[in-house]
Amino acid sequence: MTGVQRFLSACARHPVDRTPVWLMRQAGRYLPEYRAVRERVDFWTLCTTPDLAVEVSLQPVERFGTDACIVFSDILVVVAAMGAKVAFTEEGPRLEDPVRTARDVKRLRTFDPASDTGFVLETLSRLRRELGERAALIGFCGGPLTLAAYLTEGGGSKNFLRLKDLLYRSPETAHELLATLADACAAYAASQVRAGAHAVQIFDTWAGELTPQAYEEFALPYQRRIVNTVRRAGAPVIVYVNGCAGILELMARSGADVLSVDWRIDLSAARARLGSGVGLQGNVDPAILTTTVEAVRNAAAAALRAAGPLGHILNLGHGVLPQTPPECVRAFVESAQSPSLLANEG
Amino acid sequence: MTGVQRFLSACARHPVDRTPVWLMRQAGRYLPEYRAVRERVDFWTLCTTPDLAVEVSLQPVERFGTDACIVFSDILVVVAAMGAKVAFTEEGPRLEDPVRTARDVKRLRTFDPASDTGFVLETLSRLRRELGERAALIGFCGGPLTLAAYLTEGGGSKNFLRLKDLLYRSPETAHELLATLADACAAYAASQVRAGAHAVQIFDTWAGELTPQAYEEFALPYQRRIVNTVRRAGAPVIVYVNGCAGILELMARSGADVLSVDWRIDLSAARARLGSGVGLQGNVDPAILTTTVEAVRNAAAAALRAAGPLGHILNLGHGVLPQTPPECVRAFVESAQSPSLLANEG
Repeated sequence: MTGVQRFLSACARHPVDRTPVWLMRQAGRYLPEYRAVRERVDFWTLCTTPDLAVEVSLQPVERFGTDACIVFSDILVVVAAMGAKVAFTEEGPRLEDPVRTARDVKRLRTFDPASDTGFVLETLSRLRRELGERAALIGFCGGPLTLAAYLTEGGGSKNFLRLKDLLYRSPETAHELLATLADACAAYAASQVRAGAHAVQIFDTWAGELTPQAYEEFALPYQRRIVNTVRRAGAPVIVYVNGCAGILELMARSGADVLSVDWRIDLSAARARLGSGVGLQGNVDPAILTTTVEAVRNAAAAALRAAGPLGHILNLGHGVLPQTPPECVRAFVESAQSPSLLANEG
Repeated sequence: MTGVQRFLSACARHPVDRTPVWLMRQAGRYLPEYRAVRERVDFWTLCTTPDLAVEVSLQPVERFGTDACIVFSDILVVVAAMGAKVAFTEEGPRLEDPVRTARDVKRLRTFDPASDTGFVLETLSRLRRELGERAALIGFCGGPLTLAAYLTEGGGSKNFLRLKDLLYRSPETAHELLATLADACAAYAASQVRAGAHAVQIFDTWAGELTPQAYEEFALPYQRRIVNTVRRAGAPVIVYVNGCAGILELMARSGADVLSVDWRIDLSAARARLGSGVGLQGNVDPAILTTTVEAVRNAAAAALRAAGPLGHILNLGHGVLPQTPPECVRAFVESAQSPSLLANEG
């Protein structure tokens, strides 16, 4: 099977010759060839310059032979196009003028994928040509709840008090904001499919910080809106939430083809709770990839065993950490590529 | 029923006249009377001076009539007695000379509750006399994994890479450290029961950052060691882990009487997975208590409904946040004290 066939078969829960593998944030600071590019340009220039975005997106595919290639970009591209002033710092993104009132929501500009994010669409169509059948091309967007978290907090957060204040004190304004973001993300994701993405991943990373009840009210309906639009455009959808062990069944109601789960739950327990109607992606603890090759092989083997061969995409439970030695990423990818090696190691 | 009877009945899954209620970190910075004391003395002086520790421990019981009173102290008292140099800063605790090697582990001093933490034991026996039957007295200690996290990281952490490096690269050293900490905590917790604590809570806050497999190897056996010792001393045990939705069944194997769970899982789902053999404590999102009284009442009512009347202690899913208005804590406590008020509000 080609990488594209293997990846799409896993998304559809069809048989595969072996489990496909890629890593969230596989193009990133842990790679010397990525750091070499970043020495010349800043993060935003990299996101918005197709020549460079194509180059770094391909780096992990070239080096490790992953079965999927995720376009190099950032979930905040959409809100930046809607008027948010985003700065990328060493400590993470910072947003000026946080969105906290109904008036702030109205200030957000209408989003048009072609005119606002043409650079991403061009990157995708060039990647599709470069990749051929080697690796599936993944487009992505943020989950509306997660984008709302960045907009309200003005950056990352520990307790998400600004976000939750909006949700619990002004639920109507929250829903207006979330609906606006969902419409933008749905249009953006569908345009990525038309530009060549084989699949789309929705990164609703911080939705796992909500109670299940709040997740059901404020995250799920907006994930579903994006999922429906992407599926109508003809591509499978992966939904990722960090800290999803308590909301797996709700997450499945998004209609996603594949749920990307973090490392705090065993994949066999996830399977038992979800049945065979949905695929699973994950879920090795990214911290393990900063330790030893042996620990990486053991963790990857455990994930492959727990998930079984059908409807599983081997991945991490969150993005690759900058401290990760590339040889640990290689060992991780090889665990799927040559599972017989693992068996021999016992 | 008195507060003591109500609390101990809930721990034993016996019938109660109403669900007992208290809050993790209920004596803390959100209370003006606590801040008034802290203007005069630093955190460590407060922990180690029985007059002051008794005063602030009682503040939330006096103000709100909670059914339990947790002794004011810190989980790092034990490791400080073992030789760790702990400083309490506005950003959290800082530990000099992190413990990362077998030699570092051997450097830790033997811990003796009476001579090393007599101030805590005196605080407990005075609190027991002051409280009478009003409220159950709760002693506590850190979970060994969580103490190991502070010792290896030298403070709080986002990804716990130092801790996980020890666990995955040097599991034997990790087990030596964890066993040393478990023995100290078990002796410490049992001495708290002898000094007057009706129950003990083990705060293994960061154990939920591990994979279920690592939790089973590195957290569970050491929780169990403390649980067994405290139960032999005649008191029920509550185990708290933040982010426990994926490991509930493993957590129950600690032998704890009550599992204290965070807000990322519905209590009815926890009940369904655990059966009726173990009590539940929790699990309102502490962020909700920084929003509105109405949102607090709704969230408390939902927790009471989801858990049912038997074997439930109403609490938060993590400690009270400093930004919390005291009237939100009052509304929370009243939700258990006068559930008919909630019913009338619909």
